[in-house]
Amino acid sequence: MMVKANKREIRCDSIGFSDLKLKQRPGDFCYGIDAVLLADFAAKGGGRKRAPAQKNKRIIDLGCGTGIVPLILSHKTDFKVIWGLELQEESIRLARDNIAMNHLEERIFLEQGDVSDIGYTLGGELKESFDAVCANPPYMAGNRAIPNESQAKHIARHETSGTLEDFVRAASYLLRPRGDFFMVHRPSRLVDILCCCRQYRLEPKAIRFVSPRSGEAPNILLIHCSKNGNPELKVMDPLWVYDGAGYSEEIEEIYERK
Amino acid sequence: MMVKANKREIRCDSIGFSDLKLKQRPGDFCYGIDAVLLADFAAKGGGRKRAPAQKNKRIIDLGCGTGIVPLILSHKTDFKVIWGLELQEESIRLARDNIAMNHLEERIFLEQGDVSDIGYTLGGELKESFDAVCANPPYMAGNRAIPNESQAKHIARHETSGTLEDFVRAASYLLRPRGDFFMVHRPSRLVDILCCCRQYRLEPKAIRFVSPRSGEAPNILLIHCSKNGNPELKVMDPLWVYDGAGYSEEIEEIYERK
Repeated sequence: MMVKANKREIRCDSIGFSDLKLKQRPGDFCYGIDAVLLADFAAKGGGRKRAPAQKNKRIIDLGCGTGIVPLILSHKTDFKVIWGLELQEESIRLARDNIAMNHLEERIFLEQGDVSDIGYTLGGELKESFDAVCANPPYMAGNRAIPNESQAKHIARHETSGTLEDFVRAASYLLRPRGDFFMVHRPSRLVDILCCCRQYRLEPKAIRFVSPRSGEAPNILLIHCSKNGNPELKVMDPLWVYDGAGYSEEIEEIYERK
Repeated sequence: MMVKANKREIRCDSIGFSDLKLKQRPGDFCYGIDAVLLADFAAKGGGRKRAPAQKNKRIIDLGCGTGIVPLILSHKTDFKVIWGLELQEESIRLARDNIAMNHLEERIFLEQGDVSDIGYTLGGELKESFDAVCANPPYMAGNRAIPNESQAKHIARHETSGTLEDFVRAASYLLRPRGDFFMVHRPSRLVDILCCCRQYRLEPKAIRFVSPRSGEAPNILLIHCSKNGNPELKVMDPLWVYDGAGYSEEIEEIYERK
């Protein structure tokens, strides 16, 4: 008999990057490989040969959940200031716990608010104040799906409280000119993503497709855009997650297991 | 000492599909793998499991050059009628020779004209009369390049006499609703391609990236759009050209060498 996870249960795991730990609720939403790939992609500056300087620079993660991407960024990058924006009360409360537990209150700042009303949430002086924005938005379009899952999980997965366009518009609002936008999403939304990014002056500069194995169709997409950048897209070499019986060499490197 | 090809020289080659032959001018422009991949992609119906019925259906190749794509389509498909449109006098003359030489005058029809003025070139009754359109447009944007090559080669490679938008607009004009558009292009133009296709109601349904070898960045892009189709893109499994010392298995199958 399957034992169903208690919805209120909180689990605390080591996330595998130095001694960082994360509390999350298995009944709601647990982070996956997408978050790790996004943080690594942002840390490396997308498709560039070398990441641009990060010291004294500011990055924000839109829809940060319980804080996994800011935590990995604190380990993989030199960004001086890392923000996280999250709508859901329960997630932001756990995120605050996580930042405190890892003693990162002086580098990671959290804000509760809605990406779909970014001018209200993070307006005024924060407009065009970030050097980089990253986002792992809900993948599923529309809100027609029947919520047969927890409210928190449903909001995190569906565009009920933040569409692709909301995230892209917010990123464009927060970024300084030539600032970087990094996003993880699904290949099936590629047309929406590219057209929407260009519409908000976030010109796509690099995309990378991630597939389970070599030669298979991709199921994850990483994209890097530059605010007000010139049109010239680099489609990067593909990344695959598994090789033989285990992770591929590059995934092992991203997870810092070797 | 390199012997430069005589610009007027005409070469006649077997193209490897049944006993089809093709005359072309090495000094101008010779067809490459892109044309073969496009014809095969169109023949298979893009990313579909099975190509839609082709009997009694009509397809047109925009910018057909000396006729390579129509010739391969005559071999690989059941299309009843195959049109080719080409602007350049010398190419269309050779294309006519090629169709006659291969005894395909009753199935392949050629027209000289400009894709950028499709209503004039193929207007009236031909509007929305085709079930499928394919195109291998010039890859290089703008016309700022210095033409240090033959005029024919320059027009075939650069958007001097037909931009991406011209080809997409022409395809949309010629296709019946739910008709198929197949194109080969460069991955670096992906944003332009997807946004432009959607703008002209050719909704991208499948894309396939082609790279020299497994794990390498792609240098060729195949795309299938459906006129007035619903948004839902399939990013297909990647195709690579070489494996070890020779062609990959799938390329051998496409070239029908096995």
